[in-house]
Amino acid sequence: MRLRHKPWAKEKIQNYPQYIVPNPENYRGKWNLLFDNKNPIHIEVGTGKGQFVTEMARMNPEINYIGIELQESVIVTALDRLIEAELPNVKLLHTNGEDLREFFEKGDVSRVYLNFSDPWPKNRHEKRRLTYESFLRIYEEVLIDEGEIHFKTDNRGLFEYSLMSFSKYGLLLKFVSLDLHNSDFEGNIMTEYEEKFSSMGHPIYRCEVQYKNRSNH
Amino acid sequence: MRLRHKPWAKEKIQNYPQYIVPNPENYRGKWNLLFDNKNPIHIEVGTGKGQFVTEMARMNPEINYIGIELQESVIVTALDRLIEAELPNVKLLHTNGEDLREFFEKGDVSRVYLNFSDPWPKNRHEKRRLTYESFLRIYEEVLIDEGEIHFKTDNRGLFEYSLMSFSKYGLLLKFVSLDLHNSDFEGNIMTEYEEKFSSMGHPIYRCEVQYKNRSNH
Repeated sequence: MRLRHKPWAKEKIQNYPQYIVPNPENYRGKWNLLFDNKNPIHIEVGTGKGQFVTEMARMNPEINYIGIELQESVIVTALDRLIEAELPNVKLLHTNGEDLREFFEKGDVSRVYLNFSDPWPKNRHEKRRLTYESFLRIYEEVLIDEGEIHFKTDNRGLFEYSLMSFSKYGLLLKFVSLDLHNSDFEGNIMTEYEEKFSSMGHPIYRCEVQYKNRSNH
Repeated sequence: MRLRHKPWAKEKIQNYPQYIVPNPENYRGKWNLLFDNKNPIHIEVGTGKGQFVTEMARMNPEINYIGIELQESVIVTALDRLIEAELPNVKLLHTNGEDLREFFEKGDVSRVYLNFSDPWPKNRHEKRRLTYESFLRIYEEVLIDEGEIHFKTDNRGLFEYSLMSFSKYGLLLKFVSLDLHNSDFEGNIMTEYEEKFSSMGHPIYRCEVQYKNRSNH
């Protein structure tokens, strides 16, 4: 994504603590206090401009959504959506996917969404891909038992890599579509990227994988 | 595949026992006697007109290939290729993929190839797909430990199904390409189908999966 410098972004982020959680480490293990309910929490790592997480929150009021985004100049656009949408069940974290364990303990999260993550196509950047083994371990450490990752991308190389990485980690492939927009899948919420890339004729790849219950083994 | 009735096929098959093995059950556990060497054996289930298995045998003289095909009117075309090619390391079996265990014992086979298998798209025909669970069990019972299946198809639905079926069975996804002809993969031998379908612009899907060594678990 091309980033525009927005000097006012930092201040704006601080001005909306009801949407961008200021000290998320305080809610580790007790996010129900913030949402004021015990509904399941789904997080999106790399939430970008927030269309996906906002629309999902609108469609599924019984789920709490947390969008995680590091880029200041991007998260402020997501913030604008949240201000507009006025939904009680969606929050943003201005942080890094690597730090999830500081904000969530095992079982805090019921599902991880990865949408159009940076493909990092060079082999030497493999470790930066959000489906690399070390990230799969981080997600496992915050997810419930048998928690799921729902992943979509238009990047063929990243999808191929990710299918292999999921398999190597021992995740169960529960769903896969190699052309989401020409499939039977219903209820797809498009991201900003997805609208752009699919209009260019790229197929969208999507899968759902599930962690195995280690205690059964 | 559209099948032409060839009344002379049955006789022709019987006339070439050096290429179409007449009593393959006799070689169960001792295929090295037939090939007169101890090279690994790779089988193709549903070998069709035999282009793949013949060209693979030509390229890889240190591997023994066995093509398995049930349709009389198709296997005679594969037979013509073998008569022409005069290769010592390729044979045909005129039989069904379901009966593999009658002809091979555990460890006889080092690799299974599935190329452009019948997609059987209706849900009620799932059990007929060559990547259905019961077939994966049959392959496991004839393969060496950590044996592999190499699978390609242009049928998106069959490939999606197969990735899930492999995962559910516990196979490791070692390689996957979602557009084989536009990938780095080298040494691809095309089947007759593959030439036809890829020329129509269909992407070719390909993967390699490996059985886990059960004794390690």
